[in-house]
Amino acid sequence: MHFTSAPDTATIHQLIARAQAYKRDPFPAEAPGRHRTLINLFFNPSLRTRLSTEKAGYQLGFQVITMDMAGGWQLEFEDGAVMNLEKAEHVREAAGVLSQYCDVLAVRSFPGLEDREADYEDRIITAFKTYATVPVVSLESAIRHPLQSLADCVTIAEHALHLRTRPKVVLTWAPHPRRLPQAVANSFAEWMLAWGEVDLVIANPPGFDLAERFRAGTQVLHDQREALRGADFVYAKNWSSYDDYGATAELPDWIVDEDKMALTNNAYFMHCLPVRRNVVVSDGVLNSDRSLVLQQANNRTWAAQAVLGVL
Amino acid sequence: MHFTSAPDTATIHQLIARAQAYKRDPFPAEAPGRHRTLINLFFNPSLRTRLSTEKAGYQLGFQVITMDMAGGWQLEFEDGAVMNLEKAEHVREAAGVLSQYCDVLAVRSFPGLEDREADYEDRIITAFKTYATVPVVSLESAIRHPLQSLADCVTIAEHALHLRTRPKVVLTWAPHPRRLPQAVANSFAEWMLAWGEVDLVIANPPGFDLAERFRAGTQVLHDQREALRGADFVYAKNWSSYDDYGATAELPDWIVDEDKMALTNNAYFMHCLPVRRNVVVSDGVLNSDRSLVLQQANNRTWAAQAVLGVL
Amino acid sequence: MHFTSAPDTATIHQLIARAQAYKRDPFPAEAPGRHRTLINLFFNPSLRTRLSTEKAGYQLGFQVITMDMAGGWQLEFEDGAVMNLEKAEHVREAAGVLSQYCDVLAVRSFPGLEDREADYEDRIITAFKTYATVPVVSLESAIRHPLQSLADCVTIAEHALHLRTRPKVVLTWAPHPRRLPQAVANSFAEWMLAWGEVDLVIANPPGFDLAERFRAGTQVLHDQREALRGADFVYAKNWSSYDDYGATAELPDWIVDEDKMALTNNAYFMHCLPVRRNVVVSDGVLNSDRSLVLQQANNRTWAAQAVLGVL
Repeated sequence: MHFTSAPDTATIHQLIARAQAYKRDPFPAEAPGRHRTLINLFFNPSLRTRLSTEKAGYQLGFQVITMDMAGGWQLEFEDGAVMNLEKAEHVREAAGVLSQYCDVLAVRSFPGLEDREADYEDRIITAFKTYATVPVVSLESAIRHPLQSLADCVTIAEHALHLRTRPKVVLTWAPHPRRLPQAVANSFAEWMLAWGEVDLVIANPPGFDLAERFRAGTQVLHDQREALRGADFVYAKNWSSYDDYGATAELPDWIVDEDKMALTNNAYFMHCLPVRRNVVVSDGVLNSDRSLVLQQANNRTWAAQAVLGVL
Repeated sequence: MHFTSAPDTATIHQLIARAQAYKRDPFPAEAPGRHRTLINLFFNPSLRTRLSTEKAGYQLGFQVITMDMAGGWQLEFEDGAVMNLEKAEHVREAAGVLSQYCDVLAVRSFPGLEDREADYEDRIITAFKTYATVPVVSLESAIRHPLQSLADCVTIAEHALHLRTRPKVVLTWAPHPRRLPQAVANSFAEWMLAWGEVDLVIANPPGFDLAERFRAGTQVLHDQREALRGADFVYAKNWSSYDDYGATAELPDWIVDEDKMALTNNAYFMHCLPVRRNVVVSDGVLNSDRSLVLQQANNRTWAAQAVLGVL
Repeated sequence: MHFTSAPDTATIHQLIARAQAYKRDPFPAEAPGRHRTLINLFFNPSLRTRLSTEKAGYQLGFQVITMDMAGGWQLEFEDGAVMNLEKAEHVREAAGVLSQYCDVLAVRSFPGLEDREADYEDRIITAFKTYATVPVVSLESAIRHPLQSLADCVTIAEHALHLRTRPKVVLTWAPHPRRLPQAVANSFAEWMLAWGEVDLVIANPPGFDLAERFRAGTQVLHDQREALRGADFVYAKNWSSYDDYGATAELPDWIVDEDKMALTNNAYFMHCLPVRRNVVVSDGVLNSDRSLVLQQANNRTWAAQAVLGVL
């Protein structure tokens, strides 16, 4: 009913097929959203996710309402709290009320990157799943970004058909001046494993291993060049440390550039965007015809339609 | 033409009936909003009001445009002003221009709680009524919240059918850490009186009597327990002082809890939300099956459709 | 394909005719926006432009998505930049991604008024034109406001029919407490010249001449009274200095008042709004039946439909 993490193998295949069907024909004859309301609730800012989800909603026939809570509305999550401080509303009421105004409730939230345990409880999305009476869709939560991962699966599926063998996909840590969540990387690993169609290798510096539950079953290498050898897809992404929670590191050598791409099997380059040019990836790689970053962004719309179309 | 306060008895009955009809069938065959535009203008933030009004607009077939002015746009209200300071536009032009972009203009504004006379002139909504050339709908003004009150009437009507006698409705002041407007309480009293279907009693601490024009004709008690005795509906709400304008008081004993509800005729509990748990009302009362807070929020949509559907 | 400055004479006549057709019948039988998406991207705040463009989009049948970037999202424009500072995304990716989410991309941006050369490169709108793969519409750029100018042409056309001779149109600088862009004045001059239906005279204080490329071919007078003599239309607008870039001046005598209007041929008064009463223009002039400011604002909708309807 909810869509907040990776579903099972069979369902991932169905979602990819459905996304591709919507990509060919975005406007279903029987609009699944007809006379229904989609609320997009943003506790943190968003560009791609907001635009692609709104567009997906419209194309399915939903009444789409987007609500920006950034800076505005502090929710209480503790049961039994005496609410005499800043928090104006308990998530029980918030989720209950919002459920009455919509048929699908999509929620974006970021981690604080201060308290690992709290972040990994994925409190906001979990509370909305608990108290909402309509399907809840994650538009990125503290620790996962499943619509991005579905779009990434679609993109890989579109470009892996010519390969004679299972594609080798390398998720590589890359430099970034700011402290970023682990959500995209966590979800990507989770989906690749659940999908079962690729061999995933994760490359990251020592101290930047993802949480055990997300990297379990995946080879993790601390030598980026070794990992990239023979790769068919290179997915670059920065994330802050899980072990030394929220810490980052200045490691400019981890940039993905033409030299490193030369180690691969003429791999496609992927990134979820926005991307820092010449920090995460060189201009040469990003401007080359092996870069799939725009296709990934495009597939966000069809991924969202695939998910929203059956809720 | 406008909708900014309580209409007469007959019209309240019609509005309730219309709201209930939309609740049974939200999508009229002949959409009253077809090829028409609803602009929602927010000078102050809103969650429930915004979502329910947007949804109502969509369900009636309106083109819905929501505009958030918070922090942005300072209007001049004085005639003859030399506008060489912060205020960028006179309400004459603002209302005149907005009227050309829509068929219904809905406006939310809050009081400053500093200058009682200015607030009680209800300057923003009054100016829009004066200068707009389309119907103006209050989405809460400095001193009234009529769409909330209409939703409250619908909620009481739905739960009073089984009663053998006229329901006793108690509007009780409740504690709150912040200084709040009197708007919800003013409107609730105004509508209960105009509706004529209930016996209203207001309970509040000394110094917190509502303005004479809103409490006239209503029994006001300063003893909460005495007021609650035999109540069929308990409506809790904090408001700051009208007499010592904008002042508040720490009176935690005014919380509505199970002990106090035991004094009533197994009353329903009502609140307009958001509500501070264990400050305004105890968890036990709010979680009980006598709590109507979610139904009230739900009825906001149908109240908005009832009003917008004939403008 | 794009709409960012004045088109040629023939096309201006077509646009005016199309705007007037939409004004008579806003809802085309074959909606040009059906199954298409319009994204309105605001790097700076907007009231009239946003509302009229959204309404135009809806009336043409577009799926309309408005995105407020103010304060949020810093774009990199330099090629080859090492993006390790504040700028989170390069305009290449931003424009490329947005192009995949819409069929028409409308963009508003303001000048910084610090660096004339940078402003007059009109960097944001130019970059979007370069990298977007869908038509780009200016909702006001650093140096032009073409949708305003088209609405002004429509307004003048509507009120010039009775004139026996070519109308004399005077664009006059007027006082204002803040430093304003030259965009509206630049565009107005550009469109009047390209339209070829009026005789334009520009009146401004010494030091406030518009950039050569915008005033070329137009008479510029530094004596306001001389300029106003015999005018059929008086268009008032403040702009900061182009020569002493961004500077302003306290010249209250440049207000447009009844005395000055008495010098004209019973001229109509025009302003793009918002307007500072009794600073830019006197109450008497603005409240008179010769004031066209509300008609201008109204024509914004039809101007936007005329442009969006063929993209």
